[in-house]
Amino acid sequence: MIKISVFYPNDEGKTFDMEYYCNKHIPMVQEKLGAQCKGVAVEQGLGGAQPGSQPTYVAMGHLYFDSVEAFQSAFGPHAEAITGDIPNYTDIRPTIQISEVKI
Amino acid sequence: MIKISVFYPNDEGKTFDMEYYCNKHIPMVQEKLGAQCKGVAVEQGLGGAQPGSQPTYVAMGHLYFDSVEAFQSAFGPHAEAITGDIPNYTDIRPTIQISEVKI
Repeated sequence: MIKISVFYPNDEGKTFDMEYYCNKHIPMVQEKLGAQCKGVAVEQGLGGAQPGSQPTYVAMGHLYFDSVEAFQSAFGPHAEAITGDIPNYTDIRPTIQISEVKI
Repeated sequence: MIKISVFYPNDEGKTFDMEYYCNKHIPMVQEKLGAQCKGVAVEQGLGGAQPGSQPTYVAMGHLYFDSVEAFQSAFGPHAEAITGDIPNYTDIRPTIQISEVKI
């Protein structure tokens, strides 16, 4: 299993609409990716390790697939529609990582 | 539900022993934290968004709890044992984030 993580850095002065992200963006992404997307997860940053510290990421979104190839074939045809929706909920430039799920 | 994410940056020249992490460190952490820890997840970084690019994090570990207070009460008494085991699998200094699970 692989995991596509989309990290939204907690940059000063930037905004992130978690309601839109959870209720419009993620459902649209799931609908576009179809059955090859095995799961989704979304988190909102609360803080860092030290009390009162800021989180590194204001939000994170994760998509699970059986393989990198499955992700590419599902995502490719809808890349424009999915990335084109980003300005509707944030002006943050996200960082993306592909990982292998070990546990 | 909250999620404690431990990010290990992909720093040049650093090492990370994924075998030790999955088979020794994480089971020890789970044993110490007990039933208040509702789940664990571990990922190994494969790459970034661009083909051939490096992942931001070589590894990520996640712990799930019902609340920040539940994490603090479970982790506090074992903080030294848990953080003291880090040099046994890596010389990377991890970044920690606390998040609220939205989806």
